[in-house]
Amino acid sequence: MTATYIVKTAIISCLRTPLRSGKAFLLQARCLGHAKHLHTSAKRQKSAHVDLTSERYPKLQRGPFATLTDADVTSFERIVSGRVITEPSELDGYNTDWLRTVRGSSKLLLRPKTTEEVAAILSYCHDRGLAVVPQGGNTGLVGGSVPVFDEVIISTHLMNNIISLDEVSGTLVCQAGCVLATLDDHVGQCGLTMPLDLGAKGSCHIGGNLATNAGGVRLLRYGSLHGSVLGIEAVLPSGEVLDCMSTLRKDNTGYDLKQMFIGSEGTLGIITAASILCPQRPSAVSVALLGCKTFQGVLDIFKQTKRQLGEILTAFEFMDTASMELIGENLRLSNPIGASPFYVLIETGGSNQAHDEEKLSGLLEGLMEKGMAADGTLATEMTKIQAIWSLRERLAEALLHDGYCYKYDVSLPLSAFYQLVIDMRQRLEGAATRVVGYGHVGDGNLHLNVTSPEYSQRTMDLIEPFIYDWVAKQKGSISAEHGLGFKKRDFIYHSKSTSAVTLMKQIKNLVDPKGIMNPYKLLPSK
Amino acid sequence: MTATYIVKTAIISCLRTPLRSGKAFLLQARCLGHAKHLHTSAKRQKSAHVDLTSERYPKLQRGPFATLTDADVTSFERIVSGRVITEPSELDGYNTDWLRTVRGSSKLLLRPKTTEEVAAILSYCHDRGLAVVPQGGNTGLVGGSVPVFDEVIISTHLMNNIISLDEVSGTLVCQAGCVLATLDDHVGQCGLTMPLDLGAKGSCHIGGNLATNAGGVRLLRYGSLHGSVLGIEAVLPSGEVLDCMSTLRKDNTGYDLKQMFIGSEGTLGIITAASILCPQRPSAVSVALLGCKTFQGVLDIFKQTKRQLGEILTAFEFMDTASMELIGENLRLSNPIGASPFYVLIETGGSNQAHDEEKLSGLLEGLMEKGMAADGTLATEMTKIQAIWSLRERLAEALLHDGYCYKYDVSLPLSAFYQLVIDMRQRLEGAATRVVGYGHVGDGNLHLNVTSPEYSQRTMDLIEPFIYDWVAKQKGSISAEHGLGFKKRDFIYHSKSTSAVTLMKQIKNLVDPKGIMNPYKLLPSK
Repeated sequence: MTATYIVKTAIISCLRTPLRSGKAFLLQARCLGHAKHLHTSAKRQKSAHVDLTSERYPKLQRGPFATLTDADVTSFERIVSGRVITEPSELDGYNTDWLRTVRGSSKLLLRPKTTEEVAAILSYCHDRGLAVVPQGGNTGLVGGSVPVFDEVIISTHLMNNIISLDEVSGTLVCQAGCVLATLDDHVGQCGLTMPLDLGAKGSCHIGGNLATNAGGVRLLRYGSLHGSVLGIEAVLPSGEVLDCMSTLRKDNTGYDLKQMFIGSEGTLGIITAASILCPQRPSAVSVALLGCKTFQGVLDIFKQTKRQLGEILTAFEFMDTASMELIGENLRLSNPIGASPFYVLIETGGSNQAHDEEKLSGLLEGLMEKGMAADGTLATEMTKIQAIWSLRERLAEALLHDGYCYKYDVSLPLSAFYQLVIDMRQRLEGAATRVVGYGHVGDGNLHLNVTSPEYSQRTMDLIEPFIYDWVAKQKGSISAEHGLGFKKRDFIYHSKSTSAVTLMKQIKNLVDPKGIMNPYKLLPSK
Repeated sequence: MTATYIVKTAIISCLRTPLRSGKAFLLQARCLGHAKHLHTSAKRQKSAHVDLTSERYPKLQRGPFATLTDADVTSFERIVSGRVITEPSELDGYNTDWLRTVRGSSKLLLRPKTTEEVAAILSYCHDRGLAVVPQGGNTGLVGGSVPVFDEVIISTHLMNNIISLDEVSGTLVCQAGCVLATLDDHVGQCGLTMPLDLGAKGSCHIGGNLATNAGGVRLLRYGSLHGSVLGIEAVLPSGEVLDCMSTLRKDNTGYDLKQMFIGSEGTLGIITAASILCPQRPSAVSVALLGCKTFQGVLDIFKQTKRQLGEILTAFEFMDTASMELIGENLRLSNPIGASPFYVLIETGGSNQAHDEEKLSGLLEGLMEKGMAADGTLATEMTKIQAIWSLRERLAEALLHDGYCYKYDVSLPLSAFYQLVIDMRQRLEGAATRVVGYGHVGDGNLHLNVTSPEYSQRTMDLIEPFIYDWVAKQKGSISAEHGLGFKKRDFIYHSKSTSAVTLMKQIKNLVDPKGIMNPYKLLPSK
């Protein structure tokens, strides 16, 4: 069967498929599925012991902060009565990160409900010199949302009020502790969608999303949070409330201070509320999977796709043949098209199913005719769309079946994008089970993963700092979307200039002269 | 002839129209047209005398800056040899703003070509305590880009190199002095478009656009510069180069410092280069003009339009009946549809002409059938599109024919949007020739204009501070896209909280402790 034939059959079957009203919910169903897989994996590891961070990093010094006293606890009881947690077993989950790789020893968790309560807590901590760590859904991957030593944990769990939604402008206003999926459901009822989407959407908090400038699969279409967020309310380390809660799309009256808090990883204050511009939810979704002979071919397809699909393109993902083999071997998922060195997943989301399918079919036919794609299939039904997305989204789960996984999330110029995988594979010959590359090509974001039966220091030494040096030489980013948190902060100079880091430190010192806000995070230790 | 008939005829004629390859250039042609009108108006006023700002605002005190000496000029000759302007007649245009409402008395204009030259200039000025004002195309409307007293003018005119364009990722890298229209032409050759577009595109510099966070007619579709700008290089007041020149779409390694410079109006440093993400250029453009009985009806149409056009909507503008009368009386432009209290202009830009026309026709038919639009017409040919856009874009020119024009550019929640025009009209009865409202409804951005035969202090006193108080009560913005500059800085508290302005002042003091960068701008005098 020729490749062209497969595509054309798919096209014909699509065009025969009647429009389905349930299409609007596809994207959401897919993503919740992804979240479920990730959480299952985390559960698997739940029993593993996690070393205290202070023990695993013995050179790390605790900052000159005060130590919690009973009098402090009594004072906090006055501020958030009944929402002061000191029971060690209850604290364990808040002290440990989601990946179970770092663990703090906080003796206190506070669960404020209002901005005023957060302000009162921070004011008290500031006066006393107590260090704090803000925590949302605790789904971060760089150890940014858990204590390193005994910092007081301030959870946004109970700050989960949706304040307003303007259906005409699409502006959502909510507290920081709202769960992303809950917000997406809420705005979905008005035909809107949240401008970001990620695997952890079922548990991550919007405040944490903003604090870490979360990216995810919708970034290609809707851009970053720096563009989507209209307003932020934050409490500064002193306890002062910084009110930048505009709901306006245009406001050029002074420095745009809210931007400073997007991606500041809780080191400048605690975001307590936000207003976010929600785009129209696509009512039609289609997905295509293509095979491709070279990585240059992937880039050629990307260029052509942007040209022909333009405004309806929502995702452009890639995976290499090692990724496809991995998912076949470890999860028994089957590749619906012929084996190829590279695969491309294209998703469209628009307002008219027939138009979108016509555009996508036109693209695919052109690619096949010109020999740019070696093989391909097109899906418009929910089950087929989900099956194709599973190949890409369950890779993280499949990797864990190999044993230990060394995970990297980098941004690279597209010209150098896949070369890192090739170089790493060559470097790790005999020292790794496999080296796989996949990710958001559309955003220049590569997920490079290495596996081995168990953790190997030799393998780790071959990877780091080699990978960071490699990325730095290409002027890439050593953390595309996960942030620096605790784990990557000392690699900041690989992606940022000395002048930039100096200014960051000055800003931190300006806003938080006592350094109580999420210490040991984002800024380098030296 | 019934309204429905007009629309249906238009639809039929569109569908018969063959696809034209020249469509991609429509948007550009339209905007250049706008720029031409504005510049003609400026020329008209060229002969008028402009008071020195220091004389018009006698209470204003010059800051404690050094005064330029011959030795300084000699030193600058060493840094930018042959590009040191001291001739008063040459300096006049750089001392006076484009609207000819404010005028400084600078004795020196410097024209650097490189970042290193800018750094050397600022380092020298910093050491000497000389105040400076950065100037791009000098097209600002709030007196932000000209000296107030004798600040040294640093022009970006000769910093006009396009450094690179990555056709695959769509990333443009260029110096700050590139003219917006030049950049749009350049990226247009690769099927891309600049993510912003404004009347002054023929002369404004991209560095100035970033420094003022310019908005314009594409904001509805492509979002603000906070989302589109990937990297910035700036020289700090000390002369240090701040390198944040990433070309990556995702980079979460520390605070996003570039954001601080977007909209800082040259008060924190001079932007010398930038990298910008350019979206795909629409190959198909259509425009519809609709009549509507109430302003609530305008909002209902907006909601429906977002729902049905979704991803292809590029502009949603409104004008009131006073605007349509104005353009008819002063410029003899005729209204192609029946008279209505309100008019809506909808533009679509997509990758498939037939699909877009079908979507737009479907929307219009639905609106007419439901009685949401009283009348309407649809245009897909360049001349017709331009004719419709002229009704909206030549309003600024038409206003000047009345005599004196009091111009306001505010953001308001859509629920309060038009009430300001009604209240102002009532307040100014007998004190104004007319009060007209039009603007970017899609962005919540109202242009409120009042005219009288000549400047009247009584009329001005009726307008200000009434308008700013009104906007503040609605939590609107007193400057949607023009910035604060020199003229509006003392109204900052009408749109920003005390805590926010305090933090802005702290940041200014941190980055520019001597206060030499564009003094008397953005931050309030008190």
